Amino acid sequence: MSSLTDDMNLATRLADAAAEVIRPFFRARYEMDYKSDDSPVTQADRAAEAAMRVILEKERPNDGIIGEEYGTTREEAERVWVLDPIDGTRSFIAGRPIFGTLIGFMQAGWPVMGVIDQPIIKERWVGAIGQGATLNGAPVKARACRKLSDAILASTAPQLFAGDTGERFSVLARDCRDTLWGGDCYNYALLASGHIDLVVESGLKLHDLAALVPVVEGAGGRMCDWHGDPLTDASDGNVIALGDAARLDDVLEALHSGGHDHHHHMHDHD
Amino acid sequence: MSSLTDDMNLATRLADAAAEVIRPFFRARYEMDYKSDDSPVTQADRAAEAAMRVILEKERPNDGIIGEEYGTTREEAERVWVLDPIDGTRSFIAGRPIFGTLIGFMQAGWPVMGVIDQPIIKERWVGAIGQGATLNGAPVKARACRKLSDAILASTAPQLFAGDTGERFSVLARDCRDTLWGGDCYNYALLASGHIDLVVESGLKLHDLAALVPVVEGAGGRMCDWHGDPLTDASDGNVIALGDAARLDDVLEALHSGGHDHHHHMHDHD
Repeated sequence: MSSLTDDMNLATRLADAAAEVIRPFFRARYEMDYKSDDSPVTQADRAAEAAMRVILEKERPNDGIIGEEYGTTREEAERVWVLDPIDGTRSFIAGRPIFGTLIGFMQAGWPVMGVIDQPIIKERWVGAIGQGATLNGAPVKARACRKLSDAILASTAPQLFAGDTGERFSVLARDCRDTLWGGDCYNYALLASGHIDLVVESGLKLHDLAALVPVVEGAGGRMCDWHGDPLTDASDGNVIALGDAARLDDVLEALHSGGHDHHHHMHDHD
Repeated sequence: MSSLTDDMNLATRLADAAAEVIRPFFRARYEMDYKSDDSPVTQADRAAEAAMRVILEKERPNDGIIGEEYGTTREEAERVWVLDPIDGTRSFIAGRPIFGTLIGFMQAGWPVMGVIDQPIIKERWVGAIGQGATLNGAPVKARACRKLSDAILASTAPQLFAGDTGERFSVLARDCRDTLWGGDCYNYALLASGHIDLVVESGLKLHDLAALVPVVEGAGGRMCDWHGDPLTDASDGNVIALGDAARLDDVLEALHSGGHDHHHHMHDHD
């Protein structure tokens, strides 16, 4: 039976293995075939996940694995590793060194430990519920936010909001100080480090969530869905991350205010 | 009389001086007073511009200087240096290492040489019209893009589009392969390096433009306004950067198609 410390050490080995595979593919010159099966990003994604799976099969043969590229192994296991080799595919393709490798560890469906690794500029956030969070070994802490109008809000892309979630987000954004776009998992890492106050997104998958929750909550922040409920393997992908949990009611109120009149579009909210 | 090579060497000295000033302020912990006069980003901005101005006054006492923070000196000079110590203030504040120091050099109102410097991860793009562009000394080249539907489009934020420019952008974005948000000057640098095909923005200032044009055009790309006209010190701030100038007509057609019906909002264009 491995301890959480053992599991955290293993997670950093996984991140090292993924980083080594991914680095040579970053900014490799290629034309516009990035969604085809043999694009560098797909190659990097698959090879990095394969490298992590080899280690897991050897070190934790009874644990489950859920990977973005190679699917699920022993999903019913109590202990499950959740792998997203390259979160922020758009950033990776465009040569921005702010994509991330996500390694989450769940027990009984609850994310308890996670790694957000940026292999190009070599930044690694590690967090565990109740045990803190670190950036390259140094403790990080989310910051206080006294009111929503002080908050720096981040979200990856307006086009990722499905249904009416984009209009709800716009209502929230108007109540915040400023909105920062792009960023993917890196936004959650920067929230854990106390530089961003709020990340609100739609359409996240389990392989995103599982690593983010322990980093954010380990740093003293809060993650939940758009109803304020904790995130599990059954969540709907609508996500809120707060540096200061005291602002949760304000965020939920804005997202559910119903004031979604059609004069407020994404580009008007400033 | 200094040669363009002398001026490029001086520009890299300016970038070194700015970088040294800026680095200690990055990710400094501070609360939400970033727009106030003594916030770290304002301090870094001013101190970096001051450091560059000291060098310019000594080395090029007859040249003009236009700076974002300290305004204009000898604007009527034939030779003018254009300084933006921290382009991408939002990114800087949020701890993203993809903001940039912009140093442009204009002759008779035309941008002829520019530097985009990222001081945290130490990436420096230098370009001059007719003389190529480099990243950390190695030549870079914008890439070909055979059709608009292949293009990766980037833009900093939907809320920066004023008037109807946001809706026009949405029409264009629907014709492109994908849209990447955030990024500021770093998008233009990545376009010069051949990773992004198209950057379209509104509201840029001269202190942004002057450095970007020589890097993009030095790398073989094209920059112009939304009418296809070259950018000068009199441009209106609506900007197009193309890796492949052959796509210019397609971009202009999309921006001026008039199909701005009200069913197409920013979050629908995917």
